[in-house]
Amino acid sequence: MSLYTETFYANELTELFSDRESVTKLLNVEAALAQAQAEVGLIPSTASKIISECCMVDAIDINALKSDIVLGGNVAIPLVKQLTKAIKNRDFEASKYVHLGATSQDIIDTATILTIKEYVVWLEGKLEVLKHALVQLTKDHVHTIMMGRTLLQQAKPMTFGLKSAGWLEGISRTRTRLNELKSRLFCIQLGGAVGSGNANITTEVQMAFAKNLDLNASFPWQSQRDSLAEFASVLGVLSGSLGKIAKDVSLLMQTEVAEVFEGAEEGKGGSSTMPHKRNPVGCALILSNATRTPGLVATMLTAMPQEHERSAGLWHAEWETLTQLMNLTGGSLEKSVDLITNLEVNKDRMLQNIEITNGLIYAEKVSLYLSKSLGKMQAHESVKKACTLALQQQKHLKEVVQEMHPQIESIEDLFKPDNAIGNSVVWTENILKKYS
Amino acid sequence: MSLYTETFYANELTELFSDRESVTKLLNVEAALAQAQAEVGLIPSTASKIISECCMVDAIDINALKSDIVLGGNVAIPLVKQLTKAIKNRDFEASKYVHLGATSQDIIDTATILTIKEYVVWLEGKLEVLKHALVQLTKDHVHTIMMGRTLLQQAKPMTFGLKSAGWLEGISRTRTRLNELKSRLFCIQLGGAVGSGNANITTEVQMAFAKNLDLNASFPWQSQRDSLAEFASVLGVLSGSLGKIAKDVSLLMQTEVAEVFEGAEEGKGGSSTMPHKRNPVGCALILSNATRTPGLVATMLTAMPQEHERSAGLWHAEWETLTQLMNLTGGSLEKSVDLITNLEVNKDRMLQNIEITNGLIYAEKVSLYLSKSLGKMQAHESVKKACTLALQQQKHLKEVVQEMHPQIESIEDLFKPDNAIGNSVVWTENILKKYS
Amino acid sequence: MSLYTETFYANELTELFSDRESVTKLLNVEAALAQAQAEVGLIPSTASKIISECCMVDAIDINALKSDIVLGGNVAIPLVKQLTKAIKNRDFEASKYVHLGATSQDIIDTATILTIKEYVVWLEGKLEVLKHALVQLTKDHVHTIMMGRTLLQQAKPMTFGLKSAGWLEGISRTRTRLNELKSRLFCIQLGGAVGSGNANITTEVQMAFAKNLDLNASFPWQSQRDSLAEFASVLGVLSGSLGKIAKDVSLLMQTEVAEVFEGAEEGKGGSSTMPHKRNPVGCALILSNATRTPGLVATMLTAMPQEHERSAGLWHAEWETLTQLMNLTGGSLEKSVDLITNLEVNKDRMLQNIEITNGLIYAEKVSLYLSKSLGKMQAHESVKKACTLALQQQKHLKEVVQEMHPQIESIEDLFKPDNAIGNSVVWTENILKKYS
Amino acid sequence: MSLYTETFYANELTELFSDRESVTKLLNVEAALAQAQAEVGLIPSTASKIISECCMVDAIDINALKSDIVLGGNVAIPLVKQLTKAIKNRDFEASKYVHLGATSQDIIDTATILTIKEYVVWLEGKLEVLKHALVQLTKDHVHTIMMGRTLLQQAKPMTFGLKSAGWLEGISRTRTRLNELKSRLFCIQLGGAVGSGNANITTEVQMAFAKNLDLNASFPWQSQRDSLAEFASVLGVLSGSLGKIAKDVSLLMQTEVAEVFEGAEEGKGGSSTMPHKRNPVGCALILSNATRTPGLVATMLTAMPQEHERSAGLWHAEWETLTQLMNLTGGSLEKSVDLITNLEVNKDRMLQNIEITNGLIYAEKVSLYLSKSLGKMQAHESVKKACTLALQQQKHLKEVVQEMHPQIESIEDLFKPDNAIGNSVVWTENILKKYS
Repeated sequence: MSLYTETFYANELTELFSDRESVTKLLNVEAALAQAQAEVGLIPSTASKIISECCMVDAIDINALKSDIVLGGNVAIPLVKQLTKAIKNRDFEASKYVHLGATSQDIIDTATILTIKEYVVWLEGKLEVLKHALVQLTKDHVHTIMMGRTLLQQAKPMTFGLKSAGWLEGISRTRTRLNELKSRLFCIQLGGAVGSGNANITTEVQMAFAKNLDLNASFPWQSQRDSLAEFASVLGVLSGSLGKIAKDVSLLMQTEVAEVFEGAEEGKGGSSTMPHKRNPVGCALILSNATRTPGLVATMLTAMPQEHERSAGLWHAEWETLTQLMNLTGGSLEKSVDLITNLEVNKDRMLQNIEITNGLIYAEKVSLYLSKSLGKMQAHESVKKACTLALQQQKHLKEVVQEMHPQIESIEDLFKPDNAIGNSVVWTENILKKYS
Repeated sequence: MSLYTETFYANELTELFSDRESVTKLLNVEAALAQAQAEVGLIPSTASKIISECCMVDAIDINALKSDIVLGGNVAIPLVKQLTKAIKNRDFEASKYVHLGATSQDIIDTATILTIKEYVVWLEGKLEVLKHALVQLTKDHVHTIMMGRTLLQQAKPMTFGLKSAGWLEGISRTRTRLNELKSRLFCIQLGGAVGSGNANITTEVQMAFAKNLDLNASFPWQSQRDSLAEFASVLGVLSGSLGKIAKDVSLLMQTEVAEVFEGAEEGKGGSSTMPHKRNPVGCALILSNATRTPGLVATMLTAMPQEHERSAGLWHAEWETLTQLMNLTGGSLEKSVDLITNLEVNKDRMLQNIEITNGLIYAEKVSLYLSKSLGKMQAHESVKKACTLALQQQKHLKEVVQEMHPQIESIEDLFKPDNAIGNSVVWTENILKKYS
Repeated sequence: MSLYTETFYANELTELFSDRESVTKLLNVEAALAQAQAEVGLIPSTASKIISECCMVDAIDINALKSDIVLGGNVAIPLVKQLTKAIKNRDFEASKYVHLGATSQDIIDTATILTIKEYVVWLEGKLEVLKHALVQLTKDHVHTIMMGRTLLQQAKPMTFGLKSAGWLEGISRTRTRLNELKSRLFCIQLGGAVGSGNANITTEVQMAFAKNLDLNASFPWQSQRDSLAEFASVLGVLSGSLGKIAKDVSLLMQTEVAEVFEGAEEGKGGSSTMPHKRNPVGCALILSNATRTPGLVATMLTAMPQEHERSAGLWHAEWETLTQLMNLTGGSLEKSVDLITNLEVNKDRMLQNIEITNGLIYAEKVSLYLSKSLGKMQAHESVKKACTLALQQQKHLKEVVQEMHPQIESIEDLFKPDNAIGNSVVWTENILKKYS
Repeated sequence: MSLYTETFYANELTELFSDRESVTKLLNVEAALAQAQAEVGLIPSTASKIISECCMVDAIDINALKSDIVLGGNVAIPLVKQLTKAIKNRDFEASKYVHLGATSQDIIDTATILTIKEYVVWLEGKLEVLKHALVQLTKDHVHTIMMGRTLLQQAKPMTFGLKSAGWLEGISRTRTRLNELKSRLFCIQLGGAVGSGNANITTEVQMAFAKNLDLNASFPWQSQRDSLAEFASVLGVLSGSLGKIAKDVSLLMQTEVAEVFEGAEEGKGGSSTMPHKRNPVGCALILSNATRTPGLVATMLTAMPQEHERSAGLWHAEWETLTQLMNLTGGSLEKSVDLITNLEVNKDRMLQNIEITNGLIYAEKVSLYLSKSLGKMQAHESVKKACTLALQQQKHLKEVVQEMHPQIESIEDLFKPDNAIGNSVVWTENILKKYS
């Protein structure tokens, strides 16, 4: 709908969310319904067979379909019309059994679940690829020392492996979330006009219908949208976790930090007139998506209190919202795989950046060391004084401390980044064990 | 991007938001820049002329453009490449002066303003049509008595004219809002790489550029997005005001209320198997839009704290969000014009509905009347008792009151809806004076 | 902070979210840390004992604490100061070991989890009460016939039990969700300055700390906020599901529908001057909460991409947002228990409302019946004609059909609501089996 | 309601949003109504006088009031009860005229407007202070050269004055917005039960009432919430503009950038164990607020389509949302004044940071210069090569260019930051003229 739509989406998902595929899903549902009704003996199996054969996307005039949606208020009404007409042309008797006993929402909601299910398969596959990329990145940098930063300030050294292990954990928990919601989400919606069923929508039909579509049988959820809202939220959470990675990378790519870079690709993110720039183009798109997804999740939640057995407006608000949410989150995931797989890490710069405060980042360590001999209070005072001196005289803290406390033997050890990274290595290795 | 996208949008806006028109706007900006630079003597006027002539949408391969966006992170980079190539083919010298001194954001932001300006013209025209329709509806129903309802309960009689006068007021204030923000919003963005200008982006160029595009000259606002966010908010407010109308109509269309209806159109909102249904299809779409717009406004506000001189992600988050917001609000407006113009009002049913509480809605009036003789407290007690009796015996309150207070002469007057509508008529007429 | 704050909250949660209890939780965390460090031999157990004894809320000047937050930017900094001072007064040596190796976020995040855990216990208990109330309501109305409504229009009869069974399903799925997220959410946060641990924050300390607090041990999640965002989303979903119930009840309470009512309570929702009003006051508050929670969930999602090892702003945005979300959702749940427990159902009115379309709601049923003899097309045409006649002559459809098709023997059966409720009873009973 | 609430708010607004002041405003409205009705002769002036005298906050039991809100669903119901009782105790006759003909919403909405009006006065005063501080900051740094950065990358030099001039512009436009919405927003709400008025709520009463409260007379807007939503949006925009300043400052405070700092205050943002840290505590709170306000604005917009003449839930959703929005935005403003007033700017570091790319940021300038002699294409190629060499050999670009093009005479000029800042100075001075 706009020049940019696809910029933020995943290339690999273009087909799944195409008009053709959306219509195909709707037709699959109609076919599955007729088949189910034939299986339990409610309609002739010849009719079911003909209906199934006619449920081909090529038989549908999609442009006409789209412009008719606005009249009936949903896509199932004009679709059933076109479909019935097509079947009538072939077999009048069979046309009587199209969409029998069903309501528009049965078809649309169930088709949405089919799309979601296929999407989740893709998502899980891609998350697996991202997991592998993050595991590899973490393995490569178990011992890569860098500054840890809090409130955008250098705080204490840690490792880059520890940082990417954190990214890995965040992503991995969402795989579990996706797995858990499947049993609630991958359910048919089949209830007839008001969700009470009828002679042609029975428990047996529901079960056969579910089996045909490889979904769970379920009580109609036409006005209980909690599982869709949960799914939307989990996508929102994933988009946020990917945004966290992109945020870190974009900050580490700053000219003044320059520790990590998006992989260079011909024509990507560079600037011919500003050769020093390595624009975080991929990060920008992922962060853009993470900025947009929360509003979409809010819309899905706002749309939950739907009136009676079908809403006038709130149901409709879900359609595009959910599609965009899947596309934006999918786009972020595809771009994140690209980002992590091609990430360039500048270990030298990481070490250099540790030195830019002239040793002040080791003040805590020195204080801790001195407290053994001087007591906590006096040690603290002494180090505070040393820091002030170091700042005033633009000296390295090590130098100042040495002058003040010549008795310290192991002063080099106190100022070695390797000794300041705490349990980074062990903890990173623990996480790697968990995921690889 | 989905089967439904256009369902919620305005037909009349399809072209304005088409890829072709978006590219045209970008090209117009490039042409205006070259022209401005020629006017102030920075580039040869022959070059400017050639550039302008080459800024034709037909010269651009839009599909290639779209797939290249992802590389540079915005549409201006590949567009300038294509454009430069096209110009080179015609005149090598002229090609040196394309996009001179400008940055991508200059072109994109200014083109967005051109689109917004055209959109606002459309919006104002359509708001005028809606105003006329609401004025007419209000005039027709200055004296149409109906129940006023609070917290979904019948409260006291009023008029339908008073209700639609309220709708009219809400909409009309937004016209003023739109008018006020123009001077802030209809501004060029032209600042070069970091918004500081350069030898080719001077104050004089800015002024000529603004004049060529019929926009206001302005200090660069590339990382000050307040006016865009304000515009988004005003659209959100309009979408909400239209949602208010749709909410009222959809509730009044309920089978049990049946006072007002969307105009019947062949195939619209009806149901062949449920002939009693008059689905509020138009209202549903307007309400759906009003459910989705708040999240989009929130995204625009969230995107405001953009980093330094151009953001990595937040700027990008605006692009599609604003486009959708304009389309959804435009869609609601187009559908509202249709709704109000064809609204069917059932005056008889309105009067009948006033009677369904067996006169209880007049209790306050009776109490007020009796208080003159009995005092407020005793009057209140007496009426409370009468109401309880009326409910228990399923009698009309008038009957019960008459038995309890046979001395009341004008009892019919107390139970006449015409006497219970307060200042509905006068106030409605006052509003009509204001708007017609 | 405002007159209304408590109106929307749960009475039973007032204490849990009081300042005193919040400070107590923070102190419990400090005590658990000292105890853990003593257990693994890092600090003297006498020090740990003294620290634990001093971690009493009465030792803290809460007002001073609150006004100091703004200086350090979080509550842990001034709290540790006050605490250390208090311990120093008692035992100088012990004061050296307060908060040893920890960072503010360790204390604050872990205390938040303690609060959440206690809140979830309350939530689950209350959900159990609501479940029982819904099961009872559903049992009482397995056979209570009412209209099903779609797009706010009467559609086809169903049962009230089927409707409340739907409410029950929506709520019950969220109990499962809560249960599933516990293993991810009920985790300690303990990582020191940048989440890399140090000599005093080791794996062993983490494990002892977790055990002391009855939480799961965990890798630091200080800048991976997915589990908090997930929890927020689940609250948002629950608030939406409760909003769905309130929406239905408020619509059914409309004067013109009058099928269901909030329990009458002295002074609640009534109006002395408008005795016919039964304001849906409880529903209004639940719906108000459902309107506010989506924005709060969006904020939690927006706050996910936190910079580096601790964010400058996004972490802070979570604090109040999550507290409000818990309070609003808790308030909705408390009010929903009250709503469902005291709900008044008017079965007679439900039956009367089925009749207000003069039989038109049975048109589909008649058409289906006639199609056996006339074929689908002719049956449809005939019924359509009958409907038009019924509407024009304001006759009951049964009458018209009988005149047109005198041969129908079982015409009464076609127009009996009992025969039009489909599988309502069976499906409701199936759900009751699941939950009781 | 939480430990943190006040952390994010403005100290100076505590009283305005206190319970006492909120109740005072409600009482002022009741008094103004009685007075208006006396002025037009509807009630005895003695009664009006007594009512006014009794409308004292000390006469109200605020705790009882708060716990009664939940029963009636709003604060006016229990307030009028308490007030009437108090008046009765003094003068029975006068008590008959309390709240005469008004509805709860009249009192609550009008009192809200009184609070908003007082808030806006404060806001405008504070914006004036911020404007002065920004003007001063800008004046001080008209010639302070710093790097301009796009997508978090160093781009081209500009001035710090230009940056702060941009901040100034964003803030100043919101002052205009506030000014424009006053005529729409500062209006009484007075319409009686359903907004149709009655014998005691006439046009004359409205006018007198408006005059007494120094507000505009107005047609009832009880279910037309556009002006409140607009006001909320403008606060959202302001919060975003302040967030933009805080975002820039927090990024410039990064250890690796270190160009700008929040003013040092005893105990603020520092860390005794990490002496090198200058935590952007103030920025964090402002950014936190900017993260939370968009969700609140979305809630106000979502609440717009209110049912009929008073909503069941959406009206209620506004109360706390608007209060929080005013408090958070006020808090951001107060903190921004503090931030800008005490900002420390490190000009030396700004100059140093310009050099960290070894002259690459001047590549465009060199290319432009060479193109005069070599033509655009060849110049571009040559500079590209020079940049690659500079990067590979870690040399300064100037050195490489000089070797490649020894003929350039003015090479120093090409690499002087003063010559690279474009029109920064002129444009900044233009803005200063506008605002000072």
